[in-house]
Amino acid sequence: MAARAWVSGAATTPFGRREETLPELAGAAATAALRDAGLEAAAVGAVFVGAFTPGMFTGQEHLGALVAERVGVSVPAVRFEAACASGGMAFHLAAQAVEAGVHDAVLVVGVEKMTGLSAGEIASILLSASDTAAEGRVGLPFPAAFGLAARAHMAAHGTTRSQLDAVVVKAHANALANPHAQFHRAVTEEDLRAARPVADPLTLLDCAPISDGAAAVVVTRRPRDDRSVALLGAGAATDTLSLLRRPDITSFRATRMAAARAYESAGVRPVDIDVAEVHDCFSIAEIIATEDLGFFPAGAGGPAAAEGRTGLEGEVVVNPSGGLKAKGHPIGATGIAQIAACVQRLRGEDDRLGPVDLALTHNLGGFGTTAVVNVLGRVA
Amino acid sequence: MAARAWVSGAATTPFGRREETLPELAGAAATAALRDAGLEAAAVGAVFVGAFTPGMFTGQEHLGALVAERVGVSVPAVRFEAACASGGMAFHLAAQAVEAGVHDAVLVVGVEKMTGLSAGEIASILLSASDTAAEGRVGLPFPAAFGLAARAHMAAHGTTRSQLDAVVVKAHANALANPHAQFHRAVTEEDLRAARPVADPLTLLDCAPISDGAAAVVVTRRPRDDRSVALLGAGAATDTLSLLRRPDITSFRATRMAAARAYESAGVRPVDIDVAEVHDCFSIAEIIATEDLGFFPAGAGGPAAAEGRTGLEGEVVVNPSGGLKAKGHPIGATGIAQIAACVQRLRGEDDRLGPVDLALTHNLGGFGTTAVVNVLGRVA
Repeated sequence: MAARAWVSGAATTPFGRREETLPELAGAAATAALRDAGLEAAAVGAVFVGAFTPGMFTGQEHLGALVAERVGVSVPAVRFEAACASGGMAFHLAAQAVEAGVHDAVLVVGVEKMTGLSAGEIASILLSASDTAAEGRVGLPFPAAFGLAARAHMAAHGTTRSQLDAVVVKAHANALANPHAQFHRAVTEEDLRAARPVADPLTLLDCAPISDGAAAVVVTRRPRDDRSVALLGAGAATDTLSLLRRPDITSFRATRMAAARAYESAGVRPVDIDVAEVHDCFSIAEIIATEDLGFFPAGAGGPAAAEGRTGLEGEVVVNPSGGLKAKGHPIGATGIAQIAACVQRLRGEDDRLGPVDLALTHNLGGFGTTAVVNVLGRVA
Repeated sequence: MAARAWVSGAATTPFGRREETLPELAGAAATAALRDAGLEAAAVGAVFVGAFTPGMFTGQEHLGALVAERVGVSVPAVRFEAACASGGMAFHLAAQAVEAGVHDAVLVVGVEKMTGLSAGEIASILLSASDTAAEGRVGLPFPAAFGLAARAHMAAHGTTRSQLDAVVVKAHANALANPHAQFHRAVTEEDLRAARPVADPLTLLDCAPISDGAAAVVVTRRPRDDRSVALLGAGAATDTLSLLRRPDITSFRATRMAAARAYESAGVRPVDIDVAEVHDCFSIAEIIATEDLGFFPAGAGGPAAAEGRTGLEGEVVVNPSGGLKAKGHPIGATGIAQIAACVQRLRGEDDRLGPVDLALTHNLGGFGTTAVVNVLGRVA
């Protein structure tokens, strides 16, 4: 295992319904990540910003230059968009640029400000991540698409509603220890029974919330100190936008391809991963992710969740941060916040866990259309 | 002079009010560029798409994966946004990745579909490229900002209305030979006199139009054949979003910084450039660009334009394609179309010009906020 690049600073803002503006959120995370890295802004060679659609959510585009101005630099700056994998792709390309020697350090910021619009407006904006000429405009928004995936997974593998419940309960329980999480509320049996249906079999409790928030990391060519975390492997891949053009909706090919590349480049196997932050935009998405990432065979993700094999005491701790579900999902921030969460655990800052040697992040855009996987670790 | 990367294929769609959808435009340019390069899509290691705000213009985001699907690949794909420099930044990072050995070939597509909305809707969307907390929401849209720049340039340097006219007349004359240009209509003295005021001293004829269109290039690590064009130098930089935070609005610091890097890395001087495609979103912007790029001293850009020194017979041929002004300005496509235009001239395909050895592109985002400069050439 050799480091491709290093994550030398990481930070997130609190997630949820925030008073701060989009520039304030992005600036706060950027400044905190630079401070965590012990680097002046002048040391970064580029500013990469991941955000889905700040224009539609807030009327403000051109976030690359905006964040560069906030931290006081005039280096090349650009925003990356790949739907809910916008942050993941920004990090992916930042790490490639640093590994290849283009820059010694890149500041990567993920951000989204989503609240303040009506539910209908937000639903319409989110549709733009799908193939609007196919399902987007004909009545198949993402909750419905993932509802279909859940039904298909149930039919193919016998996955049950109570296995989905286990994912939800775990997410909320884990988030209790995350001071920046959107929700600090354990989910009870009664909550599950009373949850409002969204897209059968998914209820409101199966869905990640609408959130404001930002996260940032500083990617460096060399470790800054023993708090720096190594990027050991990385992969990204794409699939069709429309689920109507997929042979199978119980598994995401883009995740499998991205994971294969990440594991191969890191020289590790799924069984080696101690902690994973996976893209649980819906409870079923976490079950599918744990299968596609190779933690469990196809169809075994549901039982594994129910048996606690992805819990804090499990063989692979999945979403100790609370995941998108309970930590919150400010879209562009998510892929970067996953890395920040893993950095925290690799540094030994999660009292609930024993030593963590290898961590994985999995960020998804659209209906499994864009996938980004990273393997992070502490290396000698 | 050593090539950093090669542009081995280039293409644009016709610009203007187009019937094609956003995906169709992007797909057509991508396919044509691959064909021009003689490469199968399977040869590209990544798909980079430059587009400003396809979500706000058309409701469709996630264009990276969408274009990848259109050309039939599942490689990493992402959209880049840097306001009107979205295409330029996509190319900048593609070339860096290829030069650094990350990929052997990257497909770079720029696209925008802007027509079909009301003028008011479009004006509101364009504001999102400015600092919405500063001038964006308080009555300083881009035509007004560039009108102020023109007034300031006139006050500082004695630049005249007839010098702006010279830029407009040249743009429309040059576009007559460009079959893909939005306008094929020479501008007469009478047109200039009758032109509707937009933001004093700028009239409608000083402003680039609203356009649909796409452009694509294939960036390769090695030349494919003698039609491949070398990227010799590149630079990008950023400045404040708001002109309210600039000490001087008669010159753009980001352009000067990006140009200095591009010239230095190419090992050439401004006087060596034969042809330049510069970001003439407004006539005054071309005059400022020819000064900031070092073709003429500060204040000499207006007289140079009036004297034909930037015309087809001039010492530096500026915007032989017709520029944004007459070729059209589908925002995300512009930075890529500039490169395609230079490739065409470097290949000797413009009968109006003698041999072209060195060409330059200059793509601007916002009010001189983001600047990307490339030096392209034929090298031994």
